[in-house]
Amino acid sequence: MVSNTGNPSAAFLVIGDEVLSGRTQDMNVAFIAKSLSEKGVDLMEVRIVPDVVPTIASALNDLRNKFDLVFTSGGIGPTHDDITADAVAEAFSTKLVVNSEAKALIEARAKAQSLELNEARLRMARIPVGAKLINNSVSGAPGFNIGNVYVMAGVPKIFRAMVSEVIPGLPSGKPQLSRTITINRPEGEIAHELGRIAKKWPSVSIGSYPFFKNNASGTTYGSNVVVRGQDEESVIKAEKQIKEFFLN
Amino acid sequence: MVSNTGNPSAAFLVIGDEVLSGRTQDMNVAFIAKSLSEKGVDLMEVRIVPDVVPTIASALNDLRNKFDLVFTSGGIGPTHDDITADAVAEAFSTKLVVNSEAKALIEARAKAQSLELNEARLRMARIPVGAKLINNSVSGAPGFNIGNVYVMAGVPKIFRAMVSEVIPGLPSGKPQLSRTITINRPEGEIAHELGRIAKKWPSVSIGSYPFFKNNASGTTYGSNVVVRGQDEESVIKAEKQIKEFFLN
Repeated sequence: MVSNTGNPSAAFLVIGDEVLSGRTQDMNVAFIAKSLSEKGVDLMEVRIVPDVVPTIASALNDLRNKFDLVFTSGGIGPTHDDITADAVAEAFSTKLVVNSEAKALIEARAKAQSLELNEARLRMARIPVGAKLINNSVSGAPGFNIGNVYVMAGVPKIFRAMVSEVIPGLPSGKPQLSRTITINRPEGEIAHELGRIAKKWPSVSIGSYPFFKNNASGTTYGSNVVVRGQDEESVIKAEKQIKEFFLN
Repeated sequence: MVSNTGNPSAAFLVIGDEVLSGRTQDMNVAFIAKSLSEKGVDLMEVRIVPDVVPTIASALNDLRNKFDLVFTSGGIGPTHDDITADAVAEAFSTKLVVNSEAKALIEARAKAQSLELNEARLRMARIPVGAKLINNSVSGAPGFNIGNVYVMAGVPKIFRAMVSEVIPGLPSGKPQLSRTITINRPEGEIAHELGRIAKKWPSVSIGSYPFFKNNASGTTYGSNVVVRGQDEESVIKAEKQIKEFFLN
């Protein structure tokens, strides 16, 4: 799927029983969304799936065929429930083998930290054939890139470090400029005119997000209007028109 | 798709450019995940898609065919970018019409709050033919239920109120009991034995989630082990075995 901005398109696949059970509040979506947005890559879908090999493989195949780039988080640690590498190998019909480079990284880390180099830690060196490693500056065990898929850790600190490693090498597009206008009136009162302005700027996306504020005199209702687009001039003109109409 | 627990299965579809752009941190996934978990409904997939009618309709058709229940959030307000009802009508090949009951609710709310009853507010009375309304105790404009799909607002306060309205009427299953054991050792050191215990309890899911703590003496690494299952006896026995092995 090509984004209508001409930018590379992307999907993010979160692998995590802990997110689907509500135990863990996901923090990775917002981070990668912002990072891709700054790079001019359009994040067009996020999926969260459980820790089940065929489910992950099927979602991955669906997304990697639909979008230019796919990122995953979660399931690449040393425990029995870390099965993302198995699922990626299955999706790509390739083998999962001990990668000597990954093994060397894990060995070096174990040595530096005086950790035992056991079977569980070496499990993290199992990488699908044909993949390139993604450096893990936090805890050693690498992520990997195969085809258009980037496989990263779920722990937010490690995920962020890996995203930062990956971003410079991605194809880039033209970032969207985004401006937010806060209007202290409820959406129902600004909707008509806002819709009229939106029609005038087809190259710009205008979103409206209501908010409530509770204060001494009761609840006040307002709207955050977000103007986004690649053409700076249009974004600024649309913003100006909205401000002139609603804030004067 | 039937969950292997025998519980009803569910998917959650988040409709939101603002989440995909990283502007808004989603808070609804964790809320509905917990609510469904308590009800004995297994949340098996979450998707986040942009505010695009055919994209929403296609995701909705995919999910409603795959799972017993589908919940959506976002895009049912009064502004031009609120197009979820249009997408749901398209997915169900039905018409979007002004629903007299929804209109009455919006009229009553406008009257009570001395708000103008304009075209934008009445836009929220457009409901697909065949749908039943979901009460909105926060701001009046209703959500709706059609087939196995429940369409709700994206603003967390309204979303939560609507989820609470919907939950009692859902088919229910046997909730999973969940126990968390915090082990102050890194995953790489507990993985072998944890995997052995997990194999002994096939009816129980055992997940391991690493954590880091920074303190005066440096970083300590630990693991939160989560034991989940429907059979209370097995969960408690597996928990006991993990505690005995790692905490004594």
